[in-house]
Amino acid sequence: MIERVMRILEVFDSGETALTASEIARRTKLPVATAYRIVGDLVASRVLEREPDRRVRIGLRLWELATRASSAVSLRDIALPYMEDLHSVVRQHTQLSVLDRHDVLYLERLTSRHATAVNATTVGSRLPALQCAPGIVLAAYAPPAVRDELLTWGKLTAFNKQTVMDRDELRKIVAEARRVGHAVVPGWIHDDVTGIAVPILAADGGAIAALSIAIERGGDDELTYMHALQTTARSISRAMHVENLVTDRRLNLLRQQIRRATARD
Amino acid sequence: MIERVMRILEVFDSGETALTASEIARRTKLPVATAYRIVGDLVASRVLEREPDRRVRIGLRLWELATRASSAVSLRDIALPYMEDLHSVVRQHTQLSVLDRHDVLYLERLTSRHATAVNATTVGSRLPALQCAPGIVLAAYAPPAVRDELLTWGKLTAFNKQTVMDRDELRKIVAEARRVGHAVVPGWIHDDVTGIAVPILAADGGAIAALSIAIERGGDDELTYMHALQTTARSISRAMHVENLVTDRRLNLLRQQIRRATARD
Repeated sequence: MIERVMRILEVFDSGETALTASEIARRTKLPVATAYRIVGDLVASRVLEREPDRRVRIGLRLWELATRASSAVSLRDIALPYMEDLHSVVRQHTQLSVLDRHDVLYLERLTSRHATAVNATTVGSRLPALQCAPGIVLAAYAPPAVRDELLTWGKLTAFNKQTVMDRDELRKIVAEARRVGHAVVPGWIHDDVTGIAVPILAADGGAIAALSIAIERGGDDELTYMHALQTTARSISRAMHVENLVTDRRLNLLRQQIRRATARD
Repeated sequence: MIERVMRILEVFDSGETALTASEIARRTKLPVATAYRIVGDLVASRVLEREPDRRVRIGLRLWELATRASSAVSLRDIALPYMEDLHSVVRQHTQLSVLDRHDVLYLERLTSRHATAVNATTVGSRLPALQCAPGIVLAAYAPPAVRDELLTWGKLTAFNKQTVMDRDELRKIVAEARRVGHAVVPGWIHDDVTGIAVPILAADGGAIAALSIAIERGGDDELTYMHALQTTARSISRAMHVENLVTDRRLNLLRQQIRRATARD
């Protein structure tokens, strides 16, 4: 049953935001009656929301549940003020991402009106880890077993003629990223975009996340941005340690009070 | 079944981020064997993630599914750059929220190191709508039936001696917010915090969301901030209309290619 529900929710992954129950049945290959029944149950429990035209979309309640308790969100909350500082200094698209199996998953993205680079990523979107700057640094600072598995099995898609498809060459690129502490990926996915990424490190030296910017390929020297990226990544690491220590008792008490005042009816 | 799953996910609403299966059984009042089985299924489909200490938490996959397709996120994505501009000018905690039944649900929050006010809200958290500035403007710009229902049945909690508990007085405050186009709520929840909110309006004149800041009570005159808040709210309304019209075909094509390259294994 849970597997069926997930199949339904995953239909919305493909870029569509609202679908009819029959479209859902077709795409999930579930019997129409089953799809209708599950969609109805999901609407009743507010996992899905029905629009006036009868199509359904992912509901606010699911977003809320996933947002409140997810580790992605705590990381993103801590990183955001530092990302804003970086963003207002470098004036380029600024991103926070984590490694999820063979992909990089974007937790946050600040776009810039001043930026000349195209930005294909959105919050919650993915890129193949071996084909983008954040993925290369996350691989470089992953445990050896994770790195090997990714380098051996990670999917490769030829987006254009810059795309590196050779696994031995990728292995060298990842090793080099580990040596220099950053990755520069020029136009592997979009011809005109260079990605620059640095790791956000935990106390054990492994990467928790990647901080990256997307700049116009062939524009500024990438090294121009490197110090700002690296100092910001260190500030975020530092803030994560502190955040775990600080608890404001009075504020926690107020938050508990608020939670009771807004408890589900 | 879906109702049971939701009961389990809702346990994480109470401020805990990681729980054992037996704690989940106790709090949901589900039989232990049932709770264990469902938790196992949810871990298998990555709705929950198991930590090294066997406790489970809301998984990254659920966050991703909820984030990609939710209307909350599209609204937040469009509003964020404008919120950042406002935030860097007024240097106060800046929030975006929507009305969800009797509560205000916070979609985004930018904190400020320069701000002197305490900020009790986080992304995904709620406040009782009748007791905070965003809720008052959202009620003021809601359809009459929604406003009446909220004013009649919305829960009231006495947080402190400023809290307005009288429904007739609240009705007047909401009417006044509609007349002047903003709401100022001094210390109803936290003694030292004043909330200031303006509506983000749809083409039909109803509120889609509220834009608000939290300032120190008894500090600056609230009106100092009003013009900046109102112009920003209008920019966001305007951007939402434009966003619906613009589609970059080449970028959409690249995004489709990326989705295929990161499709679930």
